[in-house]
Amino acid sequence: MRYSLLVGSKRVRPALCLAARELVGGNDSMAMPAACAVEKIHTMSLIHDDLPCMDNDNLRRGKPTNHIVFGEDVAVLAGDALLAFAFEHIAVSTLNVSPARIVQAVGELARAIGAEGLVAGKVVDIRSEGLSEVGLEKLEFIHVHKTAKLLEGAVVLGAILGGGTDKEVEKLRKYARDIGLLFQVVDDILDVTKSSQELGKTAGKDLVADNVTYPKLLGIKKSREFAEKLNKEAQGQLAGFDPEKAAPLIALANYIAYRQN
Amino acid sequence: MRYSLLVGSKRVRPALCLAARELVGGNDSMAMPAACAVEKIHTMSLIHDDLPCMDNDNLRRGKPTNHIVFGEDVAVLAGDALLAFAFEHIAVSTLNVSPARIVQAVGELARAIGAEGLVAGKVVDIRSEGLSEVGLEKLEFIHVHKTAKLLEGAVVLGAILGGGTDKEVEKLRKYARDIGLLFQVVDDILDVTKSSQELGKTAGKDLVADNVTYPKLLGIKKSREFAEKLNKEAQGQLAGFDPEKAAPLIALANYIAYRQN
Repeated sequence: MRYSLLVGSKRVRPALCLAARELVGGNDSMAMPAACAVEKIHTMSLIHDDLPCMDNDNLRRGKPTNHIVFGEDVAVLAGDALLAFAFEHIAVSTLNVSPARIVQAVGELARAIGAEGLVAGKVVDIRSEGLSEVGLEKLEFIHVHKTAKLLEGAVVLGAILGGGTDKEVEKLRKYARDIGLLFQVVDDILDVTKSSQELGKTAGKDLVADNVTYPKLLGIKKSREFAEKLNKEAQGQLAGFDPEKAAPLIALANYIAYRQN
Repeated sequence: MRYSLLVGSKRVRPALCLAARELVGGNDSMAMPAACAVEKIHTMSLIHDDLPCMDNDNLRRGKPTNHIVFGEDVAVLAGDALLAFAFEHIAVSTLNVSPARIVQAVGELARAIGAEGLVAGKVVDIRSEGLSEVGLEKLEFIHVHKTAKLLEGAVVLGAILGGGTDKEVEKLRKYARDIGLLFQVVDDILDVTKSSQELGKTAGKDLVADNVTYPKLLGIKKSREFAEKLNKEAQGQLAGFDPEKAAPLIALANYIAYRQN
């Protein structure tokens, strides 16, 4: 659990969670356990994704994947324990938040993971591999669920636990949906334009596996235009907030849009 | 998820959860989502346990295991989604309980699963396979974590959500620990004394895998005496409660002790 959690992630999800909390009010004690929890969920999903029966990947964040180091059995279990630990951490360590909001956060996070969340995206992804007729709609379903739902969860948890109003939570949810899709479009672009060394993970995987991607369906140029559009839409959701407090979320959207690995 | 959840479990954990709720007060709406949640967690652990990289089992509850029917990748994901769904169900569907108690229940359930719960037991179990020097202490650690923790979680969740006092919760926790260990001792005995057909799962697995078990360490006779002792201790914890309301938990202890599959 420690190996994969501490192997050097970019911590995009925790940063989003804490920035959303900052935007609506309160202090870090309210959202820090949730920020750690979304990173645990993300790490769990990477460990299980990398398994031989899934994507069969040996390299992640520039290091050998969990099952290469600890064996497949322990990798499955490490993911399970991280999943449970995420909920434990929110339930036990969240401070200065009403229990009603903590319960709401638990429900949100759980939904982001399961059969309407990242597992849904992954299952459709697996079942679509090598199929030639995967269109833009299905690709978006996969990405919204595989990637965007957890980014949405991170932002919404920060907003709920920081004491945001329903209206604030919904605006931030829309922001998160846009950058969630943005994140994956950029990932697809990087996979075909960067080397393994630059990425810290195996490059060109999508091409080798004949996965459907945005560059494959739209070409690189139109994929980049779509990314630009999503970035603008996301930042548009932040228009009603105090610009100074919204700055970190704007910076994160730009970071996701313009990252090089 | 549906296939494994509905394939015909004995529903011991939900029954324990609801019986504990009944004993301390309230009504079923308080603990029914939690009762379903512990069954989801149990099912998740079975799906992952049966994987080729774990116990590599083809038969469970008399039916082909999840990965045999749906493939290993989907089996891993079905387990993950069931784990998340358990927490979602408690957070979203529990009625007539204060949010503070729901948060407490989420923490308890999460602890029963992770690195201090069933995953801990499974990891030590895996790492002990084929070792000759596994003693009674380590065997008990494995069983307490692999089996008893979730049974404890089931009972404690029922007691918390039903509105039990701290003292009532702790008595029921002790009861659950005893029957948790009892459950596994009986499982070990059944594995060497019953056929696959009688059990609805592959019999003699422990012998084939050279797993350490109570019958192996103590012999069948002493294992049965130990089971008897645990049953008595468990029922002793219920002495202070209304005998009529305690009857289902006494019956469940006897059911676990004297079950034939």
